[in-house]
Order: sequence, then structure tokens, then C-alpha cells
Amino acid sequence: MNNVFAQRIDSLREIMTSNGWDAVVISGSDPHSSEYPSPRWQQVKWLTGFTGEAADVVVTHDHAGLWTDSRYFIQALEQLEGTGVQLHKTRVPDEVSIPDWLAERAAVVALDGLCQSKSAAQELMTKGCAVIDIPDMLESLWDARPALPVSPVTTLDVECFGGRPRLEKIEWLRKWMLLRGVDRVLLSSLDEIAWMLNVRGSDIEYNPLVISYLLVSQDSVKWFVRKDVSELAPDTEDSFNELVADGIEVEDYDAVYYALKDFSGEESPVKVFIDPSTLNHHIYSHICENYPAECIMEGVSPVILEKSVKTQSEIENLRQTYIEDGVAMERFLYWLETEVASGREVSEWEASEKLTSLRAEIPGYRGNSFENISAYGPGGALPHYSTPREGSAVIEPHGLYLVDSGGQYLTGTTDITRTVPMGPCTELEKEDYTLVLRGMIDLSMAVFPRGTAGCQIDALARMPLWKARRNFGHGTGHGIGYYLCVHEGPQSIRYQYNPQPLLPGMVTSNEPGLYRAGMHGVRHENIVLCQEAGVSEFGDWLSFETLTCCHFDTSAVIPQILGPEALEWLNAYNARVYETLAPLLPEEVAVWLKGKCCAV
Amino acid sequence: MNNVFAQRIDSLREIMTSNGWDAVVISGSDPHSSEYPSPRWQQVKWLTGFTGEAADVVVTHDHAGLWTDSRYFIQALEQLEGTGVQLHKTRVPDEVSIPDWLAERAAVVALDGLCQSKSAAQELMTKGCAVIDIPDMLESLWDARPALPVSPVTTLDVECFGGRPRLEKIEWLRKWMLLRGVDRVLLSSLDEIAWMLNVRGSDIEYNPLVISYLLVSQDSVKWFVRKDVSELAPDTEDSFNELVADGIEVEDYDAVYYALKDFSGEESPVKVFIDPSTLNHHIYSHICENYPAECIMEGVSPVILEKSVKTQSEIENLRQTYIEDGVAMERFLYWLETEVASGREVSEWEASEKLTSLRAEIPGYRGNSFENISAYGPGGALPHYSTPREGSAVIEPHGLYLVDSGGQYLTGTTDITRTVPMGPCTELEKEDYTLVLRGMIDLSMAVFPRGTAGCQIDALARMPLWKARRNFGHGTGHGIGYYLCVHEGPQSIRYQYNPQPLLPGMVTSNEPGLYRAGMHGVRHENIVLCQEAGVSEFGDWLSFETLTCCHFDTSAVIPQILGPEALEWLNAYNARVYETLAPLLPEEVAVWLKGKCCAV
Repeated sequence: MNNVFAQRIDSLREIMTSNGWDAVVISGSDPHSSEYPSPRWQQVKWLTGFTGEAADVVVTHDHAGLWTDSRYFIQALEQLEGTGVQLHKTRVPDEVSIPDWLAERAAVVALDGLCQSKSAAQELMTKGCAVIDIPDMLESLWDARPALPVSPVTTLDVECFGGRPRLEKIEWLRKWMLLRGVDRVLLSSLDEIAWMLNVRGSDIEYNPLVISYLLVSQDSVKWFVRKDVSELAPDTEDSFNELVADGIEVEDYDAVYYALKDFSGEESPVKVFIDPSTLNHHIYSHICENYPAECIMEGVSPVILEKSVKTQSEIENLRQTYIEDGVAMERFLYWLETEVASGREVSEWEASEKLTSLRAEIPGYRGNSFENISAYGPGGALPHYSTPREGSAVIEPHGLYLVDSGGQYLTGTTDITRTVPMGPCTELEKEDYTLVLRGMIDLSMAVFPRGTAGCQIDALARMPLWKARRNFGHGTGHGIGYYLCVHEGPQSIRYQYNPQPLLPGMVTSNEPGLYRAGMHGVRHENIVLCQEAGVSEFGDWLSFETLTCCHFDTSAVIPQILGPEALEWLNAYNARVYETLAPLLPEEVAVWLKGKCCAV
Repeated sequence: MNNVFAQRIDSLREIMTSNGWDAVVISGSDPHSSEYPSPRWQQVKWLTGFTGEAADVVVTHDHAGLWTDSRYFIQALEQLEGTGVQLHKTRVPDEVSIPDWLAERAAVVALDGLCQSKSAAQELMTKGCAVIDIPDMLESLWDARPALPVSPVTTLDVECFGGRPRLEKIEWLRKWMLLRGVDRVLLSSLDEIAWMLNVRGSDIEYNPLVISYLLVSQDSVKWFVRKDVSELAPDTEDSFNELVADGIEVEDYDAVYYALKDFSGEESPVKVFIDPSTLNHHIYSHICENYPAECIMEGVSPVILEKSVKTQSEIENLRQTYIEDGVAMERFLYWLETEVASGREVSEWEASEKLTSLRAEIPGYRGNSFENISAYGPGGALPHYSTPREGSAVIEPHGLYLVDSGGQYLTGTTDITRTVPMGPCTELEKEDYTLVLRGMIDLSMAVFPRGTAGCQIDALARMPLWKARRNFGHGTGHGIGYYLCVHEGPQSIRYQYNPQPLLPGMVTSNEPGLYRAGMHGVRHENIVLCQEAGVSEFGDWLSFETLTCCHFDTSAVIPQILGPEALEWLNAYNARVYETLAPLLPEEVAVWLKGKCCAV
């Protein structure tokens, strides 16, 4: 056994044996329940070699398993070969969850409590496992484990970049606390903290976040963060000073433990509120040691909903940002078509780099909002295709090229997918292209009463595909942050139940797709803003404003399949895109775009 | 105070005083949680004069209130005038439920435990009220209170009338019990019992049910029913004998109490299963006296789902029954148009009677499945309009007439609504007519993956209305029994969450509407069968087969609003209706129908 990952798992088993543990759970997340953990917490990758998101690993003395969902089944089988790690499928009908699996096999389960949410650890205990919390469990095995990330911290000037002043947000949270009899709120989700304080950093790739905790009471706000960053970046010192001037105490990251102890000594019982789905088990256990059970209040953090409803100034900035992002997209699409038509060999990777370079020209650009998906033909059939730096496919002058990308700007976060017919397409490619587009448009045109949740209108985006007995396995829409994470809640538009109503001011993606393994993939993604749409004797109405400003190629559209109403929408949309972008584009691109936006 | 209802409430208050009760709850249901109670249990009507369904009354020493939903707000205000009873609105955003209302006002609450479900009584207790169970509480006040209904009992020959033999159903239930460690199942829902035993009666208007309880164990089946009915109807004796020959013990209705006691003496603990949402509180309390708590298992009765999936023979009979019902409908619509065009004054009531008489000519007809709604103009704007025998409106040769009706047949239950343009219509009438029709058709054309619930496709039926900022307040679709209740679960198609997937074999209505108070109402209702619609690499597909066979009048259709796809569906549907029914209709009706079914 000379596989490096198999060796690491064996070393872990030795620790298990010497401690008397039956099993170890290694989580794919970090102490803040982040979607993308920084390298220090890419423990699953270090232990097994698997590089996908959203995977957890369980090691017992005679088994090692990796739990992940259908997006990664193929990738997992490839990457786990030779490691001895078995794939366990999640989100399938006969799924056996980690707690259920362990309940029958392990009495004593060790885990890194920092990287497990309170809820996840709780579920293991509910199933009868004794849970041992070993923070940084892999530290002793992992040579040169990356340190805690430390990056410059900036503050956002709401006058320039939209949103509400941090003191207003703190006041709002304190009012929420008063109404519920809560004395302290501990926030650990990094995007909630960044939103509350109007701070941004780059501790996590693609997410402009600062690794920290925030503890809010009626008379203090304490931010626990790596303070040594100020030595590295002078601006950070200014940021800290700005916060201090607003009455926020900036303390060291690890001081959160002392702060949570402090309150326990007060005379009258102090009630602390936490969100068990994001707070890590280790901190939670620490709170339990210091607070009586009746003083710990659990629930969904109110920041999540508040953050999802964008302010008027944020909305105005987003409109402009999506136009600027559209300029980069159109310049990219022009370049791509011209280069490929000229006969030059353009690879998926080169295209991706080109797109990034065009976005980088936009004032206020702060990086991409996720890893570009630049996929030609069969690559497009993988919804989470990762374009390889070396050896990526060449984009040929026929068939479909799919590009899903987005930018982080001081004035918002973008996300857009276009599927581009590179030349002649097969009938099946055209059908798939048109059916997905019709679903995207049908959802765009929806009007619905206030109180409607995304899951109630998800079928609109799917019905054209369903009628052709086709479907896609991912959600239709996710919330999008404002110069924050490209995926945020609480709303979504999906087949699965989510009772959160869509509210005016929420920004959500609209991205149906269709994937044929080994052939091609189609995804059309616009970002839509939920807006008020009038009042009538029958109620209060909402609809979507499309923020994304980038044409859809009509060469692969089959008009009879699209139908007259969707066709009318498409023609009007493309006309608006041309009208909006033409003055901002180099002349040759504007001329090209005019042709692309001709009515069908 | 000479209002008879006010006097009755006063008499009830005297009983309350002498017993030390703070409040009394009078339920609108019967001991079997029936949707339509028989006269004996129309206690709300007797006490307050209110004749709507689905109302409950609370009387305290200084207040009397009636809780009902928006269908009855206007009717309740009219009927309660002078009674001193106040209307409390249910299913509104600021609804205060009876338990919540009482929790703040009454420590001791008396109720007729026979007419309250276990769940309803439980909720009162959870809110802190002491609940006193007084079966037949109003008996002493109610002169000439109707007796328990007693009607002939018939058995269904499954060879002729479809479905599965009762012994097969009992075997299925016993297997279900074995898998769950249940020793006894007590059924109290009358349609579940009728379905299990293949028996029908007429104890309740419109519902072919027999008031009874059913207790099933691995070695016995006991049916508790009014046995004296056999003296009245000789056929009933035969029915009982048929059941006895199948090993079913037919016992007296009240013997259910003894039977529930019997089991308590057995050596090993006997586990009894009940459905708390339908079992009445009185019987439940009786069970609690005789069984230890750990032996009472609660859940949704498995009979509900099993009953909702029709067998192949039932489906075949339903197809034929809907054709015969369509013949009656077309003869009615022909008669109506001809009579009104001739200048004769036809009232809503006369039309209703005519329709019933035409249905009665169908072999196997056993009555209507609910009270006909025959409503012209403003009457149609009340979704649950009750056509008055005297003084009903005359149907004029313009505007919209709405008729919602159905029949009970040995081979199935029907339900259909047609909105009939009686001559020239206003633009608003035509718009509403067309928008509702488009929603009905869009839902009819749906294809969806196995596992989809009705609430996930409800928006299809509403979107054409929503886009015009219009909506309707009732559900889009309800399940329908097979020669049983016209409303049954567990599936539905509605805006509210109901996770029950639509399964092949389920029969559901598709009936969007639009109501304008004082003007007109539109409702188009077809009955659809959920059916398999193929398998593809993307999953397993379901769609709807329309069972209803009766044309839609195209004179009020605005083709541009209907759109090409719905128009194509409409033309094909009308053509099929003509083709199917023409050979079965009198010649003059067939000729007339041909004109009605011309493609638009």
C-alpha cells in the first residue's frame, strides 16, 4: 500500500486505536460552516485526495467512506481509486446518512468539533454515539498544514457602495433581541458577520470574508478576529480603527472563548442566542459549560433573512454592476467567436483566463465570485466541471460551449451562465438549448402573490423540459449576496420544499439546465430581482426584474418549441441588452452584438 | 330577545352555569369527522341558524362566536343577525383559533366529545383548558332532535362495479399491521369503512356511507353498525349475511365500547392504532381508560392513501361513467340554451332540477354527489352558492351561468363545473372566462416526474390569472372517491403545502376559478386521472388523463389570451367530446353539439 492517502488513513487509525475510538468523522467544512473552506480546513482533500465540495469522510477500523452527492459521483470514483475509500451516495432515495451508518457500527466517535456544526454533532449523539471532540485532530499527522488564513480587512463605505451603516444594523439586531428576551447573539457565519459590520476580506477564495466571530449584546459588540493582520496590511489598522470608532471592540480570534465565559458570572441569567446549523460543536460545547441549558436559545439567525433583502442603494448599484459585468461578457463572447472562427485553437482554460482578464478591467473588481466553469461539449454535461489548467479541451466551431462565471465587485456579486452555439448544432443540442431557454423565460415572466415561495414556481422553469421527459438535478435558483457569497439563503427556487417566501429586494438566480453525459450540457442563467408588481382587488403582486445584461444567442433556438410568448420575451430582452450595452462596447463588438440581438 | 337562536344559546348558558363550565364548544362535525353531518349532528345549525359547512361555535357566559372561513363570511353575517353570535374568521392572516381564543378566557371547557376529533380536543388541553366531555350535550335542549340515521345497507359486487374484494383489502391491512407491530386498527372515518368492506348506505346526504366503526385485528373483523336497519330494508339483511359469510362480525353500533374494553384483559399488551385527526375524543378517552398509553399508536390511517389509488377496473368504470355523466350534461346544456333562447324564464332552481332529472336517467345513478350549484351572474361569484328553492334568479340570455354538480353512480362519483356564456358577454367576462380556462388547460397538459406533489404544479393553473393580477381563494384540485365522497385525500392540488405525491391511479379535480362579487363567477372543472407517461434517462414520468367528457363553450374565448398551445388542446378536447358523445345523444343534441365543438 503505497498510496499516500491510504497511508494517511492508516496513520489516523493508529491514533484511533491508541485512544479507543471506533470511528472518526472528518468534515468538509470549517469552524464557520463555510461552503468553501480555506486550505487549512480542506481536511477531506488532504486525507483522501477528493477535491469536490460538500463531502464528509468517516473512518472506522475496517472501513473508510466518503459521503457526497450526485454532482461528484464520477469525480469521487476517479479520485478515490487506490485510497481504499468507498463512495457513499447522498441525496439518493436509499441514502444512509453518516449518523445512521455510524449508529450501527460505532459507540465512540471522535470528530473535530471545530468543523462540525452543533446540529451535525447533535444528530450523532441522538443516534446513540458518544462524541469525542478533538479540535484540530489531524494537526499531528498533517505536515505543513496551512495556518489560519490572514488577509487584509477593508471596510465598506455605504455612501459609495450601498447598504446600511453598521450601527443601523446593530440597532436592528438589538431590537430583535429585545423583542425575544435575548441578551447576547453569537454569530459565526462569516457572511453574516461581514454584512453586519460592513467589512470584507479575502480569507476564503472567491468569498470576500474575514474569519471571525461576532458577539452582540445590548451594550457591546465584540469582534473576534486575527489582529496580527494589521502588521501585514496597514489599511487593516484603519479598518479596525473605524470599527472601534463605532464602538465595536476588536479582539483576538481566540478571545471568543473568554468572552463566552465572562457572561456566566453575571447576577441575573444571561440568555445567549445561537444558530445550531452554523455554530460549530466545539464553541457550542464551550457555551454549554458556561451557561445553564435554559439560557441557551437556538434558532435560525435573523441576519440571514435581513441580509437577503437588498436595500434600494444596493439594488441601484447591482443594476449598474450587472451592466458592467455584461460588457465583460459580451467582449468575451465576441472574442471567443472571432478567435474560434479564425481557426485558432482556443482551449477551455484560455477562454476562462480571457474572461477573468476582461472582468478584471471593471472598476471595483475584487476577483471572481467562484471558479469559472468553461466547458466545451461533454465538459458542459458536468454541472460542476472544473476546467483543468493543462490539457483542457479545445473549443471547436460547432456544438455547445458553456460558461458559468461571476465577479466580486465593491458594488455587488454577479453570476451568469451562457451556453454558446459555436457553429452548427445537432437537432438534439438545439432542442435542449431551446427547452431550457423556454423554462428560464417562463420563470422570468412569472407574476405571483406576495407570500409565494420559490418552490411553488419552480415547475415553471422545468415544465418545458418535463413535457419532453427531460429534467435537471440541481436547483433552479439560489440567493446571491451583495459583494458577499455567490450562494446565500434563505430563499431558493427549487423542486424541494423551502417555505421561505420570495420578498421584494431578494436577488436570486434563474438557471435551469440539461445535461447529457458524454455529449453536451445546457444552462441558461440570469439573475433576477424580486420586485413589487402592483396591487389589485385580488391581492398584492410580485414579479422579477432581470438584472443580468447579456444576450442569448438565437442561432440554436427552435422558434416552434420556444413558443410565441417566450420568443417575444427573448426578442425584447436581446433588444434591451443591445440598447444598454452598445454605447459601452468597442465599436466592432457593438456591431457584432447588433447582429446577435436581431429579432427572431 | 325573541330570536329563537338567542334563546337556545341562553338555555345552554343556564346549563353552563349550573355545571360550572366557563365555555362550551359545539362542533360542526359528527362522531366520524364527516364533512357533511347528518341532521342529528347539525348542531351548529340548530343552535345558531347558520347553515354553512365547516363551522364551530363557542359559547361563554358573555360571548357567542362562530368560526368559519371566507366561503361563508357573507352568509354568516346574514344568518347570524339577531342571534347575538359573532363571526370569527378562519384561514385569514390574523386568525385566532378556538383553542387560542379559549386559552385566554376559559379554564373549564365542555364539549360533545363525540363530535370533536381527538386532535381538536387535545389542542384545547395543550393550551391549558380543562376539557369536560359531555356526549350529546344538546340533547336535553333540542326538542325532537333527529335520531341516528338508519338507511339500507348494500354491498358492492366488485365483479360488476370494480375495485378489490373486501377480503383482499383486509389482508392488505393485516399485512400493514404486522409490519408495524399493530394488533388492532380502529377505523371511524365512514368512507374508509365503506371502502374496506365494499358496503354503501345513505346515512348522509350525498355521501353513500353507513354510520359505523370498524375494528380489525389479525383474527377478527368487527363492524359496529345500526343492526335494526335490517327490519326496515330486507336487502340489508342479505348484505349483513354476505359480510358474515366473509368472516366479518356485524355488531351493534354501541358495542364498539365493549369491544374496546375486551382487549384490555389479554395477557400480552395489545397495541391499538388510531388516527387522531378523525377518531372522536369520546371514543379515544374510552380507549385511554382501557389501554396503557404505550399501547395506543397514533398516525394517519393507511386506508386513506390506499383508497385514493384507483384499481384498473375502477378506472375503466370511471371512464365509462364520465361519458354517461357527460351525456346528461350535454342534454342539460342543450336544454338550457334552447329554453333560454326561446324566451322562457328559466330559474336557477329549475335548471338545477332539470340537471338532476337527466342524471337520474343514467343506469346506476344513486343520487347527486353534492348539492348542485346552479348560479347565474352574481350568484356565480359565491364559490359555495346555495340555489334557493324559491325566488332563485332567472337565467338571462347574456352573461355567465355557472353550474357545478356531480352524481353518485355504482361505478363512480362525478364532479364537473361548466361556466356557460348565455349570450353576449362583457369583455371582462370573456377575459376571466379565458384566463381561467387557460389555467385549467395548462394544468391538464402538465407532465411531471414521479414524486411530484400537487402543490408543486398548482401555479400552472394560476399563472395566467396571476399575470393579469387575478386569483381565486380555493384549492385547484381535490381527490374524488369511487362511489364515495366527492372530496377525499390525501392528495390535492393547491397553493398550500401538501407533500403527498400524485400517484398513478389517483383521481383529482382541476378547477381554477375567478369570482367578482356582485358581478359574475367563472369556474372550469374537469376531473383528471394521474397516469404513467413513460420512462426516460431523466426519470419516470406522470401526466393527467382527462376523465370528464363535456365540451367547453368557445364563444367567450379570447384566442389571443388563450394562446396557441391551450387553443390546440381545447379544439382537440372538444372534438373528442363530440366524437365520443354524438352516438349517445338524441339527434338534435348531437347536431347542436357539433356546432359547439367546432375548432376555434
